[in-house]
Amino acid sequence: MAKAPVLTPRADDFPRWYQDLITKAELADNGPVRGTMVIRPYGYGLWERMQQEMDARIKATGTRNAYFPLLIPESYLTREAEHVEGFAPELAVVTRAGGKELEEPVVIRPTSETIVNEYFAKWVQSYRDLPLLINQWANVVRWELRPRLFLRTTEFLWQEGHTAHATREEARAFAARIQSEVYGAFLRDVLAMDFVSGRKTARERFAGAINTLTLESMMGDGKALQMVTSHELGQNFAKAFDTRFVSREGRQEHVWQTSWGSTTRMIGALVMTHGDDDGLRVPPRLAPVQAVVLAVKGDEEVSAAVRALGERLREAGVRVEVDDRTDVPFGRRAVDWELKGVPVRIEVGPRDLESGTAVLVRRIPGTKEPVAVTALPVLLPRTLEDDQALLLAQSRRRREERTVEVSTVDEAVEAAGTGWARIPWAALGPAGEARLGEQGVSVRCLVAADGSVPASDDEPGSVAIVGRAY
Amino acid sequence: MAKAPVLTPRADDFPRWYQDLITKAELADNGPVRGTMVIRPYGYGLWERMQQEMDARIKATGTRNAYFPLLIPESYLTREAEHVEGFAPELAVVTRAGGKELEEPVVIRPTSETIVNEYFAKWVQSYRDLPLLINQWANVVRWELRPRLFLRTTEFLWQEGHTAHATREEARAFAARIQSEVYGAFLRDVLAMDFVSGRKTARERFAGAINTLTLESMMGDGKALQMVTSHELGQNFAKAFDTRFVSREGRQEHVWQTSWGSTTRMIGALVMTHGDDDGLRVPPRLAPVQAVVLAVKGDEEVSAAVRALGERLREAGVRVEVDDRTDVPFGRRAVDWELKGVPVRIEVGPRDLESGTAVLVRRIPGTKEPVAVTALPVLLPRTLEDDQALLLAQSRRRREERTVEVSTVDEAVEAAGTGWARIPWAALGPAGEARLGEQGVSVRCLVAADGSVPASDDEPGSVAIVGRAY
Repeated sequence: MAKAPVLTPRADDFPRWYQDLITKAELADNGPVRGTMVIRPYGYGLWERMQQEMDARIKATGTRNAYFPLLIPESYLTREAEHVEGFAPELAVVTRAGGKELEEPVVIRPTSETIVNEYFAKWVQSYRDLPLLINQWANVVRWELRPRLFLRTTEFLWQEGHTAHATREEARAFAARIQSEVYGAFLRDVLAMDFVSGRKTARERFAGAINTLTLESMMGDGKALQMVTSHELGQNFAKAFDTRFVSREGRQEHVWQTSWGSTTRMIGALVMTHGDDDGLRVPPRLAPVQAVVLAVKGDEEVSAAVRALGERLREAGVRVEVDDRTDVPFGRRAVDWELKGVPVRIEVGPRDLESGTAVLVRRIPGTKEPVAVTALPVLLPRTLEDDQALLLAQSRRRREERTVEVSTVDEAVEAAGTGWARIPWAALGPAGEARLGEQGVSVRCLVAADGSVPASDDEPGSVAIVGRAY
Repeated sequence: MAKAPVLTPRADDFPRWYQDLITKAELADNGPVRGTMVIRPYGYGLWERMQQEMDARIKATGTRNAYFPLLIPESYLTREAEHVEGFAPELAVVTRAGGKELEEPVVIRPTSETIVNEYFAKWVQSYRDLPLLINQWANVVRWELRPRLFLRTTEFLWQEGHTAHATREEARAFAARIQSEVYGAFLRDVLAMDFVSGRKTARERFAGAINTLTLESMMGDGKALQMVTSHELGQNFAKAFDTRFVSREGRQEHVWQTSWGSTTRMIGALVMTHGDDDGLRVPPRLAPVQAVVLAVKGDEEVSAAVRALGERLREAGVRVEVDDRTDVPFGRRAVDWELKGVPVRIEVGPRDLESGTAVLVRRIPGTKEPVAVTALPVLLPRTLEDDQALLLAQSRRRREERTVEVSTVDEAVEAAGTGWARIPWAALGPAGEARLGEQGVSVRCLVAADGSVPASDDEPGSVAIVGRAY
């Protein structure tokens, strides 16, 4: 007898499957104000692990955390022309506060380039103050017309890095370093997610940037998700806010800047990349709970055994939770851990105690086998590393299998029905890009012929990665 | 020749000294919107250490982190009558978003009891779902008429805990546990701050609570600062939002709740408790940088020596920074580290290298002595612990010396000029409290005769702690 599906199968309705999973795995709920969300403890635990891993990598670049205000005078936004044009339609505006109408309305930050520059202009005097490398973990608000949990929410959590450098070359190199050493390393090594690293076309660039670098990943339905971006801002904000320094040669010059961000959207990406019809599958290196030790039935002896095993595994460096809630049916608990995607379940029942074994259920390959309890402290860390590698390989294979080489716009649109297309940028160009746009398809990024990131929009031999996007 | 003071001396003008210190130690700047602040990297580093220490203690109680939206429908606030009365004057209201006037204005959270209850009502069904123990790290906005950096800002950062329990007794016990095991332990063991633990009078209670517990500390000028509070909310919000559960006996009952918070105000408290006329003094257990190894002069050999020493101290478990910026005058760097209150400076010059010594400058006791470099990895951790204890003892002594026993309102007002008064609550009462209020003096809390926290407002033998407050 086939078991009734807990979730809508992906093949039937991918968006419904996504929504089901978010709800049933208790990751998040819709908030009362349109487009906002409540991140529940299990979902927030994923975010906390992301923050830990990212924060360590960000600090390793010499960047320090700070905090800039949530509320920005509306006039700041208007100082950089492209920036205000890009963000004005999404702003939430406070017009009343402390019981009075405000003389100048203030906006809730959609991003912080403007307010950051107001202070960089005060803090930077000399080349000795550069580079200035700042990051903040914060919430931002962008009014969303088509919200979807984690992927597109009116309020989201993120980190935003803001740096100032003496030269354009240094700024460019720093943006590239963040993209590879922080974001790329984190996605590959922790989230077990494959990606393509490239540059955005002028059409897709951040409002106010001279160049935007992106990492794009393919989701389970073949669509693209922009995972993270790093921007070279040139001197645009420096000129708007007059952020200058005295160079080594004694000249007044405007700084060169970068900004870069990653958000709670990565939780949605995690679901859509690694999830299956039974629920989420969390990469072991990320997982807040790597292994759950389950008491199959209620029994003092079993309960003591699972606790002791949990303790031994903790000592072996595994993040463990013990589940001996035997007043809840075993089947329901097993389904729940499966939905939540905990990488490994270790099930212990009365008969296992006699034989000194337990059942090891690996969520990622989907295997189930009896193992000697004494072997687990050595076996488990290796198993978790194997399953981490398996997830990354599956993610890479999906992209490779679902990406096709094409040479016309029509072929690209067709390929975008199931995955991505690669098309020479010279054959597509801004005109072809506009035609793709009419079909709901976009250029996710440009990559150089050798797979590296092109140094300019018109680098010969560049290839456009084309697909439908979230 | 006496050196010119870097800061306004405390005795001349305490508020000016505070403002000078915040600016010169690079803790924070005023934000562009009135009452907001920019927390600079050194100030934010203190907050990150506070978060780490607090978060571990919060999680040890079984509480898990989550995240609730910034934006709350205005109507939510009005459901609990006292709550809306307390917060309405401080609200910031978004009336325009996405380019349109909103049909229902939304407020920026001043605190989250209302929106939390909206979800607790959905998540809690049965006694099996209780206790529900949630915390969030977030920003909140309360429009401030008399802002002061860290102490009273329009936006501040905090953690807010929200819990639901099956009985009043459990809720009461949990609020008390947070107060002692989380807040009290953190203040004493990490911030090295003395405090009095008590209950607020009805006049000073949180809007919507049936009881508020507080920890009050005495600042360097003898005034009181409310450090943290924990509230028993009774069933007030549960009734307003219909947060009910089916009890073990099968009855529908409203949950009993607590909420509790601590904020970036603690950074201001740290300054006003441990700061002196030379700057901040950071307790070693909190300090992001516990020791700075300074190269006195520029020299390849000295530079190599300070780096090697830094590495050895790091291996000994000390949080170290190496300062070999010898293009900046030594005196200026020394003053800067003193301002920032790094507990220990280790100064190494060319002559020290020959003798195998360094100069150990302890910021907290203010001593300076030559030490053998080889002894430092063992000596330093002990020195830091000694200085941690010294700060706590100084903070306790201040309170003891500046607290007097009085029996009349006039005596209490007089005592509040230099510190605190203790007066029997039976002799003061709500009428006396109102008279104090006319003089700008308040009852900080009530303590029982034996120093414990009174179980009710009218517990016989209770003593009121009276003072001026920030």
